[in-house]
Amino acid sequence: MRIAVVGVGLIGGSIGLAAREQVEGAEVIGVGRSRRRLERAMELGAIDRASESLEWALEGASACFACGPVGALPEQVAATLAAAPEDCVVTDVGSTKRRLVESLADERFIGGHPVAGAETSGVEHARADLFQGAVWYLTPLERSSGLLYERLHRLVVAFGARPVAIDANTHDRLLATVSHLPHVLANVLVSQAARELTRGDDPLPRVGPSFRDATRVAGASSSVWRDIYLANGQAIADEIEEAVARLTEVAGSLRAGDGAAVEAWNESAADDRRRLLEADLVGGPVHELRLTVPNRPGIVAQVALALGKADVNIVDMTLAPAADMRSGSMTLWIAGDDQAARATDLIGELGFPVG
Amino acid sequence: MRIAVVGVGLIGGSIGLAAREQVEGAEVIGVGRSRRRLERAMELGAIDRASESLEWALEGASACFACGPVGALPEQVAATLAAAPEDCVVTDVGSTKRRLVESLADERFIGGHPVAGAETSGVEHARADLFQGAVWYLTPLERSSGLLYERLHRLVVAFGARPVAIDANTHDRLLATVSHLPHVLANVLVSQAARELTRGDDPLPRVGPSFRDATRVAGASSSVWRDIYLANGQAIADEIEEAVARLTEVAGSLRAGDGAAVEAWNESAADDRRRLLEADLVGGPVHELRLTVPNRPGIVAQVALALGKADVNIVDMTLAPAADMRSGSMTLWIAGDDQAARATDLIGELGFPVG
Repeated sequence: MRIAVVGVGLIGGSIGLAAREQVEGAEVIGVGRSRRRLERAMELGAIDRASESLEWALEGASACFACGPVGALPEQVAATLAAAPEDCVVTDVGSTKRRLVESLADERFIGGHPVAGAETSGVEHARADLFQGAVWYLTPLERSSGLLYERLHRLVVAFGARPVAIDANTHDRLLATVSHLPHVLANVLVSQAARELTRGDDPLPRVGPSFRDATRVAGASSSVWRDIYLANGQAIADEIEEAVARLTEVAGSLRAGDGAAVEAWNESAADDRRRLLEADLVGGPVHELRLTVPNRPGIVAQVALALGKADVNIVDMTLAPAADMRSGSMTLWIAGDDQAARATDLIGELGFPVG
Repeated sequence: MRIAVVGVGLIGGSIGLAAREQVEGAEVIGVGRSRRRLERAMELGAIDRASESLEWALEGASACFACGPVGALPEQVAATLAAAPEDCVVTDVGSTKRRLVESLADERFIGGHPVAGAETSGVEHARADLFQGAVWYLTPLERSSGLLYERLHRLVVAFGARPVAIDANTHDRLLATVSHLPHVLANVLVSQAARELTRGDDPLPRVGPSFRDATRVAGASSSVWRDIYLANGQAIADEIEEAVARLTEVAGSLRAGDGAAVEAWNESAADDRRRLLEADLVGGPVHELRLTVPNRPGIVAQVALALGKADVNIVDMTLAPAADMRSGSMTLWIAGDDQAARATDLIGELGFPVG
């Protein structure tokens, strides 16, 4: 099966590696404008052959993955469809879907979005297992070819991902909620806090770990995010307006000094957070373990090794140092009641009581 | 010097430990309603003596730290002032200041707020070095005794903290910006995302690492946060309203599809974030290193040990696993150009290219 990959970066490169490793008889053709980058992709084993021409690459192809940046996708996918054979499924990997899907009326096109790998970029970071266990959204329309959908679905499964068919509007609303809105709020938070820097006489704000956590994604790469914000602008604006309504209500309770309303609101957030984590993560409810440790590099190692030996895996962790950098609080997230209890015991044995 | 500590939990216990360790001739009297907890504090060396009576504890005291919960402080501080000798400085450790300071007209009272230790609670977590390098806000008024202010200042320095005198209003506005508003936004984010859980037919939202980072503080303990929200309600409402204005502007740019405005907004957030981090952290600009690693417990250890050997300290780190829990992206924050370059080399040598 010949598979074309247009744009061989982190995602395109990983698709190539996964296809070459997992799909019997796969031949992967990389398409791109940078000969250097295509050569690098070949060296890394992400593609079998390289091409600077779409037409040439798509000859005899059964599937084509358009992996360009979100803003370039409408044009890239249209060009791909123009060059692709009649029985070739064409998909993309962009993180917004509605606008792209609406712009194309072709039964060979099925929108896609693997939820993976946002933290790094470049074919150097590509890996065959990038999609292992990841959700891979697919947005078929009624006019989409069933045969081609099935082929794409099988490829996604072969890459180790979990295909989830979803309406393009729903997809964009979900992503606006869990990804784009958090980015917007992080941007607002840093800009609001930075305003204090320019006030002159006042002491500078000391941003603590909770602020750093809340703003880790602030000011994410404009080359990626400008396109995402614009492509999903209406859904993001909807989410912002809902957030504004919620915020206005909270501000009202605070101005009125309504303790019962404030407490009910905070409790329902605690409940919502728990439900989200439970829905999101397999392996049982996730436990959050908080401990205070000296901020020596060795401590992270010590804790990680102790849990590793006992086969307790750390779902997520943060180490937030105190201002002196000599101590800090470590938060570990462990999935499953038994694992969490085991972790609590082990960490206690190391001399760090879990709070 | 006799020092009374009213409420011997994480902060009160750490004050006791620090005073007994760092202040020559200090005798620390713990005051509280729970005899069990006072006995525990004595076992842990946090206090020399315990008392259930304020009057008895304050006899001959030179300084008193009121360490009750924010909501109980006005009453606790008033009672303390009533019982305290004429030359005793009385302070508190609450994370909001304006309301408390306004309610008390006594030259012996100086508001305080050590910025430390929010992640755990209880005297079990108390440590003598909790305040090492931490900012300790002090909110003297014009009527405050200079002599007593000097005494408190020296104690705070002896505890290893950095006293920062600040107007109570400014303090509350700063904290509203860098701590309380992030909590409010985290609550709003989780509740908005959880709404999707109840929509029925739609796929569940997959919350990724950026969502988890942004909402780590959501639904924080109501027993602590209800009081904070109420005590600083006006300043928090001000910050919320400013955030609402910023959000409304962004929503407008998105609805209009104004790419230039969206990009300028995102770029200024990136710039603001960089400025905040540089202002906040000593040791030079903070570099963010992103790498992809297998999600084996041993990997964190391997990276931490390699950096530890080279004396590169990790300011902050997160490990965000991919959906399959088999791999993940690790983000390390390293202060200083040289240290960051060294870290990049070392991590590269381990086989994990830094993105």
